[in-house]
Amino acid sequence: MLKFDRAEFIEKEKTALGMIPQVEKIVDEVCQKGYSNIFYVGIGGTVTYAWQVESIAKSNSTLKLYVENAADFLAMGNKNFNKDSIMVIESASGDTKEVVAAVEYAHTQGVKVIGFIEKPDSPLAKMVDYLITNDGGTYYYWYAVTLRFMYNNGEFPEYDEFMAELKNMPEALADVQEKNDEKAKAYAERYKDEPLQYLMGSGNLWGWAYCYAMCIMEEMQWMRTKSISAADFFHGTLEVIERDSVVVLFKGEDNGRKLMDRAENFLHTICNNVIVFDTKDFELKGISPKFRGLVSPFVMNAACRRVSVHLENERKHPLEIRRYYRRLNY
Amino acid sequence: MLKFDRAEFIEKEKTALGMIPQVEKIVDEVCQKGYSNIFYVGIGGTVTYAWQVESIAKSNSTLKLYVENAADFLAMGNKNFNKDSIMVIESASGDTKEVVAAVEYAHTQGVKVIGFIEKPDSPLAKMVDYLITNDGGTYYYWYAVTLRFMYNNGEFPEYDEFMAELKNMPEALADVQEKNDEKAKAYAERYKDEPLQYLMGSGNLWGWAYCYAMCIMEEMQWMRTKSISAADFFHGTLEVIERDSVVVLFKGEDNGRKLMDRAENFLHTICNNVIVFDTKDFELKGISPKFRGLVSPFVMNAACRRVSVHLENERKHPLEIRRYYRRLNY
Repeated sequence: MLKFDRAEFIEKEKTALGMIPQVEKIVDEVCQKGYSNIFYVGIGGTVTYAWQVESIAKSNSTLKLYVENAADFLAMGNKNFNKDSIMVIESASGDTKEVVAAVEYAHTQGVKVIGFIEKPDSPLAKMVDYLITNDGGTYYYWYAVTLRFMYNNGEFPEYDEFMAELKNMPEALADVQEKNDEKAKAYAERYKDEPLQYLMGSGNLWGWAYCYAMCIMEEMQWMRTKSISAADFFHGTLEVIERDSVVVLFKGEDNGRKLMDRAENFLHTICNNVIVFDTKDFELKGISPKFRGLVSPFVMNAACRRVSVHLENERKHPLEIRRYYRRLNY
Repeated sequence: MLKFDRAEFIEKEKTALGMIPQVEKIVDEVCQKGYSNIFYVGIGGTVTYAWQVESIAKSNSTLKLYVENAADFLAMGNKNFNKDSIMVIESASGDTKEVVAAVEYAHTQGVKVIGFIEKPDSPLAKMVDYLITNDGGTYYYWYAVTLRFMYNNGEFPEYDEFMAELKNMPEALADVQEKNDEKAKAYAERYKDEPLQYLMGSGNLWGWAYCYAMCIMEEMQWMRTKSISAADFFHGTLEVIERDSVVVLFKGEDNGRKLMDRAENFLHTICNNVIVFDTKDFELKGISPKFRGLVSPFVMNAACRRVSVHLENERKHPLEIRRYYRRLNY
């Protein structure tokens, strides 16, 4: 299988699982000290990961949680941000300029920052008050932070049970990639040169649809996309879909699924290129049925890794290339 | 000037201003009775109007305000919604199915609903607990609701001053349309057949950029668009912009303007089709400089009316035509 080393993948995921007890310790300490509200702050991909767990919190929690795009937050402010707020960030590079500025701003307000920073010697790793560092494992971080805050708020009583099952995720996600490889390859072969593709998600996968369109297809493949939520689709975007349009659906198993079903049924009546990636197609050994909706972002992310690998190969466009980002100033 | 009757426009706006005392009375009554939090619920265009005033509240208020897409809200729930919440909606048709369902759900929870419904004999007009009805005037409604809640929360002390100045808005917005006509016509003539256009906004105009792309260009003109916030632009979408791409910037005068300046400066180095609609180009007689940022959505909406008229004409595509919406079931 192209660019896939099962053992290496599983090893890396297992190491990422090791972050969870560290996150728990930090969140417990923050909760013990007390806080007024929680700000998840990111930009580009990182804010879309925060949206995915925000969706989970919104349905299941009364946490005072705000998700902010770092640049918007800095420019516009949020009046609910105060000295007792806690900020939560994530950065792979550790030097994303808008996030660096947001952390600097938080510190001027006396706000403490929890950060998952992949590069331990980067500016952000040195700046945050509570550092988690690891090579990869974003979802483990965001889930542990969110669910632990909820648990400490008297919500999500299945916390321990869920975290025990999460130990099965590395193997399950390796299976997902193997299972989705052929479909991902067929998709990439057929649609690699489309002038425009629509990506749709709902619930905890709306953030992923937005992210995959913007951070992978636009940024790393220079493919034109529009992401649209299954809810909004019927209020404008449907009118531009024609027989030969290309619409990719990311279907998960949370309560947003019914919105995707509705869109999928409709699309089949007007469009011949409806591609469905569905978390239901994967077994997820060791994950209880009741948690499948909750973990849909983990699953879809793994499924899409194969799409990325095949798009990269079919388009002969390595994912690392950028035309402008970090080349031109802005 | 094509499809523009100044006297008629001003008359209609003045009538809409008449809603404000009615809104104040309702919001005052709600505040006196007490509420736990506020839910602005809409779908398609209406939720994007709510986003525009949410942006204003976020920067200036500690109101517990949640903005929900009606379909997402119904499917996913929001744990902060409770019997003491107050719901605020808007509907032109008065029968948008997701909004009807949201109001029904609110009532099962004992939640009262404030609604601006244009058609007085429609289902939603009969369902809401506090009805405002008028032919047009969405912004007057959203601004009055939001700013009155803020005022009653001890914020926005300039309330009376602002509302007094708002009486100058009908004439000012008529001027905006006259001033923007030529530019809108030139834009429509040149770009009417583009295969894809990017629309960008920030701050209280991000919702407008999203709305204009989806509700006007996609829904009413069947033009392909992608809306992108000025903040996120640099984290993916920039990579697909080339010399001949078409990017339309909606620049306002709130604190989000600096993000638009940054994007505009960058875009001019890589793209030859950067079209800027800027609220600064308009005089706005009778509106104080300190309120210009606050009213940018009013202004941009008026400016874009001319774009819509000319797109409709140049494309020979009346704004009323729908291919699927309210023709096929979903």
